[in-house]
Amino acid sequence: MRNATVASAGEHALIERVRQRAGAPPAWVTVGIGDDAAVVEPERGASIVVTTDSLVDGVHFRRAWTPLAAVGHKALAVSLSDLAAMGATPRASLLSLALPADLPLADFDALVDAFVALANRSGAPLVGGNLTRTTGPLVVDSTAFGSVRPRRLMRRSGGRPGDELYLTGTIGAATAGLAVLEAGADRAALSAEEVEAVERYERPEARLRCGTSVARARAAAACIDLSDGLADAVRQLAMASGTGAVVLADTLPLHPAVPAWAERAGRNAVDFAIAGGEDYELLFAVRPKQRRAFLTTVRRCSGLPLTKIGRLTAEPDVQLDRGGTLEPLASGFTHF
Amino acid sequence: MRNATVASAGEHALIERVRQRAGAPPAWVTVGIGDDAAVVEPERGASIVVTTDSLVDGVHFRRAWTPLAAVGHKALAVSLSDLAAMGATPRASLLSLALPADLPLADFDALVDAFVALANRSGAPLVGGNLTRTTGPLVVDSTAFGSVRPRRLMRRSGGRPGDELYLTGTIGAATAGLAVLEAGADRAALSAEEVEAVERYERPEARLRCGTSVARARAAAACIDLSDGLADAVRQLAMASGTGAVVLADTLPLHPAVPAWAERAGRNAVDFAIAGGEDYELLFAVRPKQRRAFLTTVRRCSGLPLTKIGRLTAEPDVQLDRGGTLEPLASGFTHF
Repeated sequence: MRNATVASAGEHALIERVRQRAGAPPAWVTVGIGDDAAVVEPERGASIVVTTDSLVDGVHFRRAWTPLAAVGHKALAVSLSDLAAMGATPRASLLSLALPADLPLADFDALVDAFVALANRSGAPLVGGNLTRTTGPLVVDSTAFGSVRPRRLMRRSGGRPGDELYLTGTIGAATAGLAVLEAGADRAALSAEEVEAVERYERPEARLRCGTSVARARAAAACIDLSDGLADAVRQLAMASGTGAVVLADTLPLHPAVPAWAERAGRNAVDFAIAGGEDYELLFAVRPKQRRAFLTTVRRCSGLPLTKIGRLTAEPDVQLDRGGTLEPLASGFTHF
Repeated sequence: MRNATVASAGEHALIERVRQRAGAPPAWVTVGIGDDAAVVEPERGASIVVTTDSLVDGVHFRRAWTPLAAVGHKALAVSLSDLAAMGATPRASLLSLALPADLPLADFDALVDAFVALANRSGAPLVGGNLTRTTGPLVVDSTAFGSVRPRRLMRRSGGRPGDELYLTGTIGAATAGLAVLEAGADRAALSAEEVEAVERYERPEARLRCGTSVARARAAAACIDLSDGLADAVRQLAMASGTGAVVLADTLPLHPAVPAWAERAGRNAVDFAIAGGEDYELLFAVRPKQRRAFLTTVRRCSGLPLTKIGRLTAEPDVQLDRGGTLEPLASGFTHF
C-alpha cells in the first residue's frame, strides 16, 4: 500500500504485524503476544525487577528529526538501563503505543523492528503490550522485567560516607547530540564526535553487562543510572543513602563533542554536561575495601572506561569541587 | 494552592504525592516507588502473568464527562480483568501517566487515589511507574502482574468442539452507560438501571474471584474477558481454539438498561449489546463433563449470575442463532 497509515491498517492487522516481528518467544515465555495476558516463567530463586518509561513526541523526541527506529530502540534502552542499575538480567518486555491515525505504517514497522531487535539481543523478548489510537502525539511506553537474586540487588540507598563514586563512560554526549539536532546541522557535514553524540542521544546502550557483573560480584554498595543527568543521579543516590557527596569537576569524563557545543550554548562545559539528561551511564558507590574487586570486575566485563569522580560524605550537602572551590551541585534535567 | 496544576507542582513533588498515596507496600514488594526499578518477589511455583492497557482522553473517556477517579479505577480494572481471564491472582501494578500541563492537581490526586484504592483492594499494590508531560491528551497506562500455577493457567486456546460457552453477569451495560453520558442526560434524573449502566461503564469490576476460583478448580477449558465485546470475545476464543461457535441470541443476558438505549440508537437490543465493548465479564468454554464442577465453583465463589449462551463447534464459522436462523456473529468493538 502506498501512503499506508496505522489507521488504514486497523488494530488486528497491527497486532499481527507486531507478533510477526517479535518472532517465536524463548522457552521461558509460556504465552506470548495474542492472549489476554503474557505468561513468563520467573528465574528460580530470583526476584522480579520491573520498570516502565515513556517517550512522547514533542517532549522526548521529534518525529521531524528522529527516525522512528531510534525511538523504538531508545524506548526499551531507557528501561533496560534501569534494570542494569539494579543489577538485574533482562527477562521480558512490553510495548504500549498511543498512535496518531496519520502515522505511516512504515514508521510503525521501523519502531517495532528496532524495539524487537534490542529486546531479542538483550534477552528481553517482547511478550505483549497494547495499541490504541490518540488524537495527540505518539506516546511510546515500554516496560521491562528482569531477574536478580535478592543478595545481588543494587539499590540507590546502599551508600555510606567514605564510599567512592565511579562513573562508566562519558557524560554530556546525549545533550550535545540533541544540540546538534536542534541546530539543524546537515548530518553529512558532522564531525566524528558529533555523529557519535547524535548516536548516543538517539540510540543509547544500557550498561547491562557492567551492571549485572558488578551485582554478581557484589562489588558495589549502591548504583543508579544517569537518565536525568549526573547531577541528579548523585543527588538521588546521596539522598537515598542518607549522605552528602562531593564531585570533583576536574575528573569528569566529558564526551569530546561537549566543549564546542557547550560554547555554542554559552555555557561552561562541565555545567552543560552534568545538567544534561539521557546519558544512561551507571554511577556506583563503592566501599574503599571493595575497590579492587570492583575495578577488576568492570575491567573484565566490558570495554567501558571507568572514572572515579568523587565520594559520599557524612556532611549532608551535595557539592561540586571546582579546583578547590566547593559549590552546590546544580540540579539535573527534569522531564516535567 | 488554588488552581494548582501538575505543571506547577513539578515532577519530584508529583512522584512524592504518588508514593504517599500508595502507602507502605506489602512484604512481597522488596523495593517500591522511588528506586530505578521496583522489586517484587514471585510466588513460589507460580508463573508471572503480565498485561498492559491504555486509556486516552478523547478516545476511551472524556475529561469533560468522566470524573478522573473513574479513569484511575478503570485503567487498572481493565488490566485486572485480563489477569482474571488467565486465572491469575494479582500481585503488583505500575501506573504510567502522560500529563497535559494544565491538568488540575486535584484531578491528578483523584486519579491516583482511585487507582491505588483498587490496587490495594485487589492485592496488586502500586510499585512503580512513570510520569511525563505531553502536549496532547492525558494518557493513562496501567500494567498489572499476577501469579498463576502453570497447571491452572486458562488460555483462549483450550476450547474444543462441544464445549459449552458460559458468560458471567450481563452484557451491554457499559455501552448503554456510554450512550447515557453521550446523551448529556442529567445524572440526577436517571433511572436506577441507567445509574448502574453508567457505573459499569465508568467503574467496571474485574471478575477476579470468579476467574481465580475456576482456574484453581481447573473447571474450564478456556477463558477470555469481554474487553472488546461479546462478539469479539467469542470470535477470538474460537479462533485461538481452532473451532467455530454458535451463540443463542435468546439466551443472552442483556443489562436492563439496554432495550431503551438500543431503541434510542435505532438498533436491535441484541446487536447493540454484543457489539459493545468494555463489559469486562468473563466468557468460559467448559467441557460437558466439567459442567457440574464448573457450576458449583462459580456458584460458591461469587454472587455473579452465570448464563449458558452457546457452544463451540467443529464447523469453523462463528454464528448467531436468532430463534433458529443462523447468521454470522457481527464483529466487535475495535479500539482503533
